[in-house]
Amino acid sequence: MLSTRTATSYGTLTSKRSAARLAKAISGLQHQSTLTGLRPAFVVIPQQPWKTTRRGFSSTPKPQIKEVFPEAETAMVKHPKPAWEHPIYTEEQINKVTVAHREAKTWSDYVALGMIRMLRTVMDLATGYKHDHAVSLGKKDPAAANQRYAMTERKYLIRNIFLESVAGVPGLVAGMLRHLHSMRRMKRDNGWIETLLEESYNERMHLLTFLKMASPGPFMRIMVLGAQGVFFNAMFISYLISPRTCHRFVGFLEEEAVLTYSREIADLDAGRLPQWEKMEAPQIAIDYWKMPEGKRTMRDLLLYIRADEAKHREVNHTLANLDQKNDPNPYVSEYRDLTRPHPTKGIEHLQPTGWERKDII
Amino acid sequence: MLSTRTATSYGTLTSKRSAARLAKAISGLQHQSTLTGLRPAFVVIPQQPWKTTRRGFSSTPKPQIKEVFPEAETAMVKHPKPAWEHPIYTEEQINKVTVAHREAKTWSDYVALGMIRMLRTVMDLATGYKHDHAVSLGKKDPAAANQRYAMTERKYLIRNIFLESVAGVPGLVAGMLRHLHSMRRMKRDNGWIETLLEESYNERMHLLTFLKMASPGPFMRIMVLGAQGVFFNAMFISYLISPRTCHRFVGFLEEEAVLTYSREIADLDAGRLPQWEKMEAPQIAIDYWKMPEGKRTMRDLLLYIRADEAKHREVNHTLANLDQKNDPNPYVSEYRDLTRPHPTKGIEHLQPTGWERKDII
Ligand SMILES: [Fe+2]
Ligand SMILES: [Fe+2]
Ligand SMILES: [Fe+2]
Ligand SMILES: [Fe+2]
Repeated sequence: MLSTRTATSYGTLTSKRSAARLAKAISGLQHQSTLTGLRPAFVVIPQQPWKTTRRGFSSTPKPQIKEVFPEAETAMVKHPKPAWEHPIYTEEQINKVTVAHREAKTWSDYVALGMIRMLRTVMDLATGYKHDHAVSLGKKDPAAANQRYAMTERKYLIRNIFLESVAGVPGLVAGMLRHLHSMRRMKRDNGWIETLLEESYNERMHLLTFLKMASPGPFMRIMVLGAQGVFFNAMFISYLISPRTCHRFVGFLEEEAVLTYSREIADLDAGRLPQWEKMEAPQIAIDYWKMPEGKRTMRDLLLYIRADEAKHREVNHTLANLDQKNDPNPYVSEYRDLTRPHPTKGIEHLQPTGWERKDII
Repeated sequence: MLSTRTATSYGTLTSKRSAARLAKAISGLQHQSTLTGLRPAFVVIPQQPWKTTRRGFSSTPKPQIKEVFPEAETAMVKHPKPAWEHPIYTEEQINKVTVAHREAKTWSDYVALGMIRMLRTVMDLATGYKHDHAVSLGKKDPAAANQRYAMTERKYLIRNIFLESVAGVPGLVAGMLRHLHSMRRMKRDNGWIETLLEESYNERMHLLTFLKMASPGPFMRIMVLGAQGVFFNAMFISYLISPRTCHRFVGFLEEEAVLTYSREIADLDAGRLPQWEKMEAPQIAIDYWKMPEGKRTMRDLLLYIRADEAKHREVNHTLANLDQKNDPNPYVSEYRDLTRPHPTKGIEHLQPTGWERKDII
């Protein structure tokens, strides 16, 4: 029952009939789709998904379907450039990204890890992502579990959208609090703010990218709203109490993100996500990551996003290793010794568990 | 009485005796001062100004004096680059900046203007900056007023520091709320966040620059703390209610800022601020604004800062003219018609009262 209910409340188009209706509606639109090899369910996004779900599509071909966030192009202006240009990741680099875990050592580490474990459990429950868990616990027959908890393209997208919509919070909160702190206490920030805000921008780009592929229903929207409210306030207070714990928390969070995206890639490779196999990355993603021609599939996109998460994992584990008040941000610093690898904005020297303070400060 | 009390609570060094003590303390330090032509009172900053004020300086030459925010240089890293590179302003451009006022037209404009007028009055009262006001009202004999309310280098610095310490709030709040809104409502932001955050960064650089010249006392620090708390929350709520009014408010606020810096420059030119005449801009400012050699005096610095304020004035008046939800940010957009002047990051086409929507969207 759960799975049916979830699918209905999340999705706007679950049946073949509505897909057919949608296809009809699309033909009445000049919609420059970049997702050519894809079923319509993921291509176009109704203006008011919830209303549409209830009413179905009428045959009027006018403003029934519209992108959630069209490019802001007007008579005079084309499109805005990204706030932070994304560093170029090479194919070799994004393929080298691996799942990793930094061992918890201090009391603060354990608090952060405990929180992540708890949140992951709640999240998995809420999104029906019990699959591996139940099977690995031996409590469910793999076949039965597959039936009920198998991840589909839609379920992964919904999960990704939800997670990315909160992923942009910690960097923003940290950057904001450090900015206010610097002005209030009249102290230099030493460059941390920039990297933190850039991280939150990057997460928002992940969100916008996934939103080009699926439109969340009303239930999902309420969840996102609530999650943001809770998470923003929790981060706000936590960062005031212990910024170090917060960075470690994000480090562990990103470990999970790398894990999830690795699973999505593995599922895709195993043929369990057929809709994604020929799918192309949306234009917004091609522009942002500067994806080279011939390397613009959904799989490539997942590799880029996973690499971003691995970078956040490194950055936050590294920041958690530093003196929060006095150390310069190693990601925007100039290094005296250029012969040794050091932290950069790219992933050429990615450290899965972060850089240790003694090696960089 | 007021002026004496204020001076004592603000400043750490008001008497010639303490200046002499300070000079002695300086000699024991390898302190690379860039403010060579300046009296010691503005050069070095005690580590704990309030304690020092009470105790005076002991003769121990050790860690008595220290910069509030030393460059974060360690064994391995030099200094961080600025988060947002400052556009180059030419000498001609910064000299062309003028005082301006955009006429209030709408209900929202009048609310914003009323707030500014009120805040200015309170601020002037609090900082003893009645000078022009009282004289222009004819209620005070100019000579007597001069005696009491004449602005000194220190009073201007204190005023600038206070104002700059809150000036970084609106851009931050607006950027933060737009970021959260974009994620929560799953809508594109159209490039506004970047410009807003950059503005708040720029204001913080103003603050850090002035902090290289004077160290606020405990009274001032408490004021800054309180002001930030009140202003942050007020902006937070106001921006949720009416972002347009908030941008207009900042537009008017920056009109006042341009006015104040213009007065400082005029006072300097009239010989009323002798300490500033030969003073050089601190290194942080030279690096940030890329001040050309031979153009690095305090006067040049004030011209650069005033130009920044004029830019914020333009940006915020322009943003207030736009559709807050759907219009792209004209400052990061590409223009179709490149033959006509359009909004840019620099001040080559500065519009004192902002760009009108019809001309740019
Ligand atoms: Fe992400
Ligand atoms: Fe992430
Ligand atoms: Fe300023
Ligand atoms: Fe300003």
